[in-house]
Amino acid sequence: MTRTVFFISDSTGITAETLGSSLLSQFEQQKFEHVIVPYVDSIEKAQAAVEKIDRVAKESGEQPIIFDTLVNADIRAVIATSSGFIIDVLAHFLGQLETALGQKPSSTVGRVKNADRDARYKNRIDAVNFALDNDDGARINRYDQAQVILIGVSRSGKTPTCLYLALQTGVFVANYPLTEEDLEERRLPRPLAEYRDRLYGLTIEPERLSAIRSERRPNSPYASLRRCEDEVRDAEALFSRFGIPYIDTTHASVEEIATRILVETGLRGQRSQ
Amino acid sequence: MTRTVFFISDSTGITAETLGSSLLSQFEQQKFEHVIVPYVDSIEKAQAAVEKIDRVAKESGEQPIIFDTLVNADIRAVIATSSGFIIDVLAHFLGQLETALGQKPSSTVGRVKNADRDARYKNRIDAVNFALDNDDGARINRYDQAQVILIGVSRSGKTPTCLYLALQTGVFVANYPLTEEDLEERRLPRPLAEYRDRLYGLTIEPERLSAIRSERRPNSPYASLRRCEDEVRDAEALFSRFGIPYIDTTHASVEEIATRILVETGLRGQRSQ
Repeated sequence: MTRTVFFISDSTGITAETLGSSLLSQFEQQKFEHVIVPYVDSIEKAQAAVEKIDRVAKESGEQPIIFDTLVNADIRAVIATSSGFIIDVLAHFLGQLETALGQKPSSTVGRVKNADRDARYKNRIDAVNFALDNDDGARINRYDQAQVILIGVSRSGKTPTCLYLALQTGVFVANYPLTEEDLEERRLPRPLAEYRDRLYGLTIEPERLSAIRSERRPNSPYASLRRCEDEVRDAEALFSRFGIPYIDTTHASVEEIATRILVETGLRGQRSQ
Repeated sequence: MTRTVFFISDSTGITAETLGSSLLSQFEQQKFEHVIVPYVDSIEKAQAAVEKIDRVAKESGEQPIIFDTLVNADIRAVIATSSGFIIDVLAHFLGQLETALGQKPSSTVGRVKNADRDARYKNRIDAVNFALDNDDGARINRYDQAQVILIGVSRSGKTPTCLYLALQTGVFVANYPLTEEDLEERRLPRPLAEYRDRLYGLTIEPERLSAIRSERRPNSPYASLRRCEDEVRDAEALFSRFGIPYIDTTHASVEEIATRILVETGLRGQRSQ
């Protein structure tokens, strides 16, 4: 039986859903239907949400679960009248933080805006543009501005990883595809030579690589298992020869790959907020 | 006085940091230093984290705050020996969910892997590739596969929004830049005509647009305020004439823009998990 879960927020709902999904993944036998209700910033919208929750409760005969990150007490009070099981994400921890910090929380609806946050946001967007400009070795003259340069064979996961890092953390990441020619020469491609300490390698199991490439170009030499095996072997040999750290992306998500890179390069260890 | 906040996780730390940042933003007078400690999946790593926390506590004379999303009880017990103020994110809510669902949570470290999740992940990566292939009107023959087509003048925010939607939600989004020629013709660009119901417009204040364009091409006609004003006015007129919904991106983050689009197009209302 599928249980309906509502994520109710006065903003995007991303915090509620991130936490909620993580918690729900601990209940493996249960199937969940997610309903995200963002921008609940008025009594009217809260009442509409309650109607929806009550309708689901009635139709399914099961109590819906509600993850609520509403800040405004009046709006929260409306949600509390629903027949759902409410998990009040903020209230519990805000009380704890008030104790720890010896300060009262402000009750701003949504996210606080300030110059600091705007600057960080601009940095993220600049990093996305940088990643796109420096994707696939397209404009190799800006490597001096890169904090990390991802290298790997075609379709080893460089581009999604770059974009994730840029969007989420504002790190400037370029990427360079190792071509067959690069690999045959058994040395670092010329544009990378002076940035050796910023290089990070991606590798992948040849079978998986062949499957990914086959989706793009079925039955091509490019997608053949033989060629994938050769390229991956040569790329890993190159990483070892030049002491370039690398990660196998076969079973890792972009979140996992990005986190490893940030930790190993020291870029995530610490940042101010 | 800056307070140090640790986010400790057996996985990427993304859940801990998302929730923590949201909570901390409620304490506006306080400055925080974020330290993310991911992949704490052994007693040894937990002990290393405790040493780090205790060092910060001693050096700063302030009790660090710890957001902990560890699942393993033994590892959590080690963190509990630190001198930090611990906010145990999962334990509190897992207990509540256990009550609501009448089931015990599993205690898998990290995220549960299953075929369902793999399929969703593949969909996200496919959506990123689709967004890149269909960026800036590059390959307009795949619009039939797009769930949404973002349109707007150059640098109105189309590309970061597309990439965010793809990476986070797996929605297939293309984008099409409205050129001066398109705008002068006062009709929908030919490649878009048959997909009118999938179009979503982005607009932006001319002053902001001019500032963004000036970073790319300083003192160019392209970046001039006059030209930005003309383009924005014509784009908004086009949206109105053809009944295309649109959003002003000037003061909105990609998260906010993406959420609005998902809600208004009905793509986010509901999804299974």
